Amino acid sequence: MAEIKTIEFKDNILYLIDQRKLPRDYEIFECKDFRDVDFAIHDMVVRGAPAIGATAAYGVVLAAKEFLGLEKPRFFEEMEKALEKLNQSRPTAVNLMWAIGKMRTLIEENKELETREIYEKIKEEADNIYNEDIETNKTMAKHGNEIIKQGDNILTHCNTGALATVAYGTALGVIREAHYTGKDIFVYADETRPRLQGGKLTAWELVQEGIPGKLIADSVAATLIRDGKVDLILTGADRVANNGDSANKIGTFMLSVVAKAYDVPFYIVAPTTTIDFEMESGDGIKIEERSSEELTHIDGIRTAPEGMEVYNPAFDVTPHENITGIITEKGIVRPPYKENIRKLK
Amino acid sequence: MAEIKTIEFKDNILYLIDQRKLPRDYEIFECKDFRDVDFAIHDMVVRGAPAIGATAAYGVVLAAKEFLGLEKPRFFEEMEKALEKLNQSRPTAVNLMWAIGKMRTLIEENKELETREIYEKIKEEADNIYNEDIETNKTMAKHGNEIIKQGDNILTHCNTGALATVAYGTALGVIREAHYTGKDIFVYADETRPRLQGGKLTAWELVQEGIPGKLIADSVAATLIRDGKVDLILTGADRVANNGDSANKIGTFMLSVVAKAYDVPFYIVAPTTTIDFEMESGDGIKIEERSSEELTHIDGIRTAPEGMEVYNPAFDVTPHENITGIITEKGIVRPPYKENIRKLK
Repeated sequence: MAEIKTIEFKDNILYLIDQRKLPRDYEIFECKDFRDVDFAIHDMVVRGAPAIGATAAYGVVLAAKEFLGLEKPRFFEEMEKALEKLNQSRPTAVNLMWAIGKMRTLIEENKELETREIYEKIKEEADNIYNEDIETNKTMAKHGNEIIKQGDNILTHCNTGALATVAYGTALGVIREAHYTGKDIFVYADETRPRLQGGKLTAWELVQEGIPGKLIADSVAATLIRDGKVDLILTGADRVANNGDSANKIGTFMLSVVAKAYDVPFYIVAPTTTIDFEMESGDGIKIEERSSEELTHIDGIRTAPEGMEVYNPAFDVTPHENITGIITEKGIVRPPYKENIRKLK
Repeated sequence: MAEIKTIEFKDNILYLIDQRKLPRDYEIFECKDFRDVDFAIHDMVVRGAPAIGATAAYGVVLAAKEFLGLEKPRFFEEMEKALEKLNQSRPTAVNLMWAIGKMRTLIEENKELETREIYEKIKEEADNIYNEDIETNKTMAKHGNEIIKQGDNILTHCNTGALATVAYGTALGVIREAHYTGKDIFVYADETRPRLQGGKLTAWELVQEGIPGKLIADSVAATLIRDGKVDLILTGADRVANNGDSANKIGTFMLSVVAKAYDVPFYIVAPTTTIDFEMESGDGIKIEERSSEELTHIDGIRTAPEGMEVYNPAFDVTPHENITGIITEKGIVRPPYKENIRKLK
């Protein structure tokens, strides 16, 4: 088992594996203040809903460290600005808002303390978020592993591994667990255009772990599903609504339609922090549109002609009726989702 | 209207637009003998089923030119070897086998003539294939244009334009015709991984022609289809079986599944030369697997990690039940396909 330290906080510096560089180069990106953290999330040095949550939490720690010398009213003012900036670094992953919300509440509840004490509480909370993410993923992986049979061929999308979380992963965490428990699984990894998180990051984790698998273009999945070469599909989520509708990396919805048409089980793997209990259905989920350069250029080299317009949404929404189950750290949630998701609150 | 000369034969040299270089560089690839032609088809200097057919025909002309000084038995022997080599330059497009078959028959029927006369007959036949392709595409485009309504949003996959044919195009030919006749259409072009024929070639043709459109990642199509942003889908085909099952660029089948689920019309645009009357159904169609480098590298730069295996089929088969109609130069064929395709023979 290779140790992948996606996020590490030491002596008030946040160290991130620079996921824009993998697998070609393994480089560490250092965040010395919350602005660096904001950049790292926005530019996808770090990505994956749970990893973004933990990273943002340490961004708040860095802000508190920077401002703890200020008078209290100024401290709260600057902290609020930092919280808001971090909160808007990416729009779709709910774990980001969840972590920032937790920090905001903590600050409000401790207004009477000295700024240094508030900083310490924030640091403690960030460490909790960090450690809980690892525990959550391992528990989730155990629940998920219950549905994996010996020799299963599993299709997965984007990267939901150690690199998308603090450690272990969500959907790829279940795959890890199945592999560690000797289930002799085989993984089809979608390359996941436009940013190739599957081809770059999931493939890298699979090779590191020695999990057998093949990389495919996103559109190959449909034929594999029809031809009975996929036993089940596991993907992560960036936000799950109350009714089970799930926003995830662009391409997830397409897989769910084909899976439904050919009766292949389709599971979301996501911790309960990914559930947005305020959101009634997927219709309300804001979908991030990213730069057209993600399609017109590859690694800085222009591939599409000048003058061509682009539509580049980063996520899509899979309706609950296409989802066989949602694997969480509290167990596997199945339809009716409205009723069963409420129980997780 | 920009003139795009995909294929040009002059003074016994075959000039091809090097489609591996577009849109960054516009270069002409010269084929001086049939081996160059074999390489050009295999390496996808030229691609698209009808373009491959015409290119192979001129490959046979170049072989005849090269061997016409030989004694007749040797001439026929060498010609047969050349025909076989060209026939195997790519396995899926039936237009290639069709053009080679036509040439083989022509040679057999004219065995009594002098080699120079045979060469002239072959040259005449290649010119016929070339000119007929243009006529066929224009007629097909007129038939196809009948189903296009004012303001339609059309989704297309891969490149089926002037670059995929001698001129005008198949699916993109219909789009051209709709645009020229002032129908105010809008085109969503799938980038078409792994070789990005949509992002590189279709986008280039759209920009050249000033046809409004947007480039999307392949997996974005599903959301657009569900959300009512696509009025119809037009793709080409590399081989159509007797029952209507159609092999086309990888990703076509996926589109057809989503189109069916959300009741969006899905049309194949292909000349009758793309119909393989010998093939009962899509089950028998050989699917070319291409090099794993198409997924592990982009423009020569490694994107996936060393040690990752790849599955890279170049085509998939869309079953006839997902196809609303097949637009040919003889009109639009609709179900029941078995019966109606037979009438085209």
